[in-house]
Amino acid sequence: MENFTFYSPTYFSFGDGAESQAADLVRRFGGSKVLIHYGGGSVMRNGVYDKVTSALSAGNIPFVSLGGVQPNPRASLVYEGIRLCRAESVDFILALGGGSTIDSSKAIAAGVPYDGDFWDFVTGRAHLSATLPVGTVLTISAAGSEGSNSCVITKDEGMLKWAFPGNDLLRPKFSILNPRFTCSLPPYQTACGITDMMAHILERYFTNTPEVEVTDRLCEGLLKAVLHAAGEVMADPQSYSARSDLMWAGMLAHNNLCGVGREQDWASHRIEHELSAVYDCAHGAGLAVIMPAWMEYVLPHDPARFAQFAVRVWGCEMDYSHPERTAREGIARFRAFLRSIGMPTNFRELGAREEDIPKIMEHERLKGEVHEGHFVPLGDADVEAILRLAARSN
Amino acid sequence: MENFTFYSPTYFSFGDGAESQAADLVRRFGGSKVLIHYGGGSVMRNGVYDKVTSALSAGNIPFVSLGGVQPNPRASLVYEGIRLCRAESVDFILALGGGSTIDSSKAIAAGVPYDGDFWDFVTGRAHLSATLPVGTVLTISAAGSEGSNSCVITKDEGMLKWAFPGNDLLRPKFSILNPRFTCSLPPYQTACGITDMMAHILERYFTNTPEVEVTDRLCEGLLKAVLHAAGEVMADPQSYSARSDLMWAGMLAHNNLCGVGREQDWASHRIEHELSAVYDCAHGAGLAVIMPAWMEYVLPHDPARFAQFAVRVWGCEMDYSHPERTAREGIARFRAFLRSIGMPTNFRELGAREEDIPKIMEHERLKGEVHEGHFVPLGDADVEAILRLAARSN
Repeated sequence: MENFTFYSPTYFSFGDGAESQAADLVRRFGGSKVLIHYGGGSVMRNGVYDKVTSALSAGNIPFVSLGGVQPNPRASLVYEGIRLCRAESVDFILALGGGSTIDSSKAIAAGVPYDGDFWDFVTGRAHLSATLPVGTVLTISAAGSEGSNSCVITKDEGMLKWAFPGNDLLRPKFSILNPRFTCSLPPYQTACGITDMMAHILERYFTNTPEVEVTDRLCEGLLKAVLHAAGEVMADPQSYSARSDLMWAGMLAHNNLCGVGREQDWASHRIEHELSAVYDCAHGAGLAVIMPAWMEYVLPHDPARFAQFAVRVWGCEMDYSHPERTAREGIARFRAFLRSIGMPTNFRELGAREEDIPKIMEHERLKGEVHEGHFVPLGDADVEAILRLAARSN
Repeated sequence: MENFTFYSPTYFSFGDGAESQAADLVRRFGGSKVLIHYGGGSVMRNGVYDKVTSALSAGNIPFVSLGGVQPNPRASLVYEGIRLCRAESVDFILALGGGSTIDSSKAIAAGVPYDGDFWDFVTGRAHLSATLPVGTVLTISAAGSEGSNSCVITKDEGMLKWAFPGNDLLRPKFSILNPRFTCSLPPYQTACGITDMMAHILERYFTNTPEVEVTDRLCEGLLKAVLHAAGEVMADPQSYSARSDLMWAGMLAHNNLCGVGREQDWASHRIEHELSAVYDCAHGAGLAVIMPAWMEYVLPHDPARFAQFAVRVWGCEMDYSHPERTAREGIARFRAFLRSIGMPTNFRELGAREEDIPKIMEHERLKGEVHEGHFVPLGDADVEAILRLAARSN
């Protein structure tokens, strides 16, 4: 285990009806006037907006609203949010939605007290040292942004999808997690969320750090719980228990509990960011296409770890004479699982084309990084090879 | 899953050398003058006291010291600590030690800003609403107090061992976790710690709440990681990796990550408290005697859950025709494991006597509770039966 620090001071209120505490929580964490930030009309249709604003009004917390967050949230709306917060003297941001809305809220919270362009935090030109407090009311179990120290924003020009450097200031002060709010999600979005949370665990699971049994076991246990809930929720989308498991697992998958003290990879996420920049596809769907291809490509680096993944997570029988066969079986089961919940696992199913790979690589090179990932550092040729594997997979 | 809140705002700095940050952390969390609280001479002998006080001095943080914390920490020393903090205008308490020292520190921190007797918080006569901030430098992996919201103190007269009601104000502001500090612990104390952290998980694991797959998997994963590290540390007490796993697992076992959204039991802990009140035995050793006896007694209540425990944690083969046989095998393996790390598993090995059971029951009745535990609510006759099972076990 490597040295690490872990600081997760978010207050979680979990369960049916938890949103009734919204005003108390805003006040407890220093807010007196709120920006409610949300996406499209779903929070209007499913009653979340009404429930939360009623709770704020009952608690005498004034608010203004800003909707319109898109998947792959755009910088342009962040600038608009910053202007609105300043004009309205907002001192607390309450995100109603999933990862995109929460990330957009975090970026606004970072930008309000900063004199320059908030994009400076993304490029590293400035270091984030103060933010407005952020709270969340989660409506999609997926991104884990409700408990994480991360934030990804897409610059409208050229669809540059870049992440803030991890910073504990980006952790929400509180998150209200009502699984009931996710019961109306359509199957495709539910499956994208399941894929995203699994990817958050797997990016941490594949590591070169030796002696990481505690976090290995947490990763494997969470993955098994997600698989269990996935089967249930696909059969019965209204299942409160499956929605509960997914909601809590999605948070745990990305608050870094599973990643402390170990080198993490993140190549698949970074490659997927270029894919969704080119196609504006759902992040989870892009990951479903990229992760298994990445696994096949890097398997020879550490077949034992992939065999452990196959046995402990997928229940494969260990082939002690041929560990790499077990390893391949684990990847095959992962891909079969993704397909079973309706995810694409190749370019065709995603609506992507092998001919576009040069365009995706162009985006990739814009980042100016020499390599992606840490489990196996990948140069351009490796990234391209993974994209071709993903394109051609059956 | 039941509704819950989870708030674990402790900052953890983990790894070899982490104590060098002591002054920065004290200052970050509002301290300007520190009480260093510790137990016997071990922190002097193993250099922890010197390292921490050097770090404080280098950071210009003045401090006073109070040693003498005993296992099953006494109220008398808490009163002394409260007087000292007031006399010296201390505004931050830094615990150097294990659970007893941390609990003693938490009780002092609760008592300083309170006009009455701190014991009022234990009896429920007063509600805890303010404390001094507490930091910890952990030297024993066991109690989990470094991340927990709990605190247990023993009243000198009559050895009444009682707990504060759980309160997030009792969570330390920071905890410095350097596994190296635990490498010199003797095997018996190491084994007591392993038993204690396993018990913290098991008290949460045995529940009547249905549909708790995420926390089940976290419990099981942590238990497996502890078993793995236990084997390693018993063979090689200097193993930094095993000490690391135990240190982090001990925190996770008791910060309630494994217990959210589910009814918890805690009967074994409460029965053990009376045992250690009568014999002043190590808490872990008492738990090793009580827990398997408790399991045997309550098994008929839910054989399926005990079978799950046997299969998932102990790798037992499921006997589908006779689940209770699998369940019994799991308990047998648990007891065999405890014995393998040198723990007592009956009264004789603990130095207790069956003839003393009336005396233990007298203590039990002093609490004035109608029953203990939630998985199976236990009346006096049940508690006595469990004690007899524990006394007579081979």
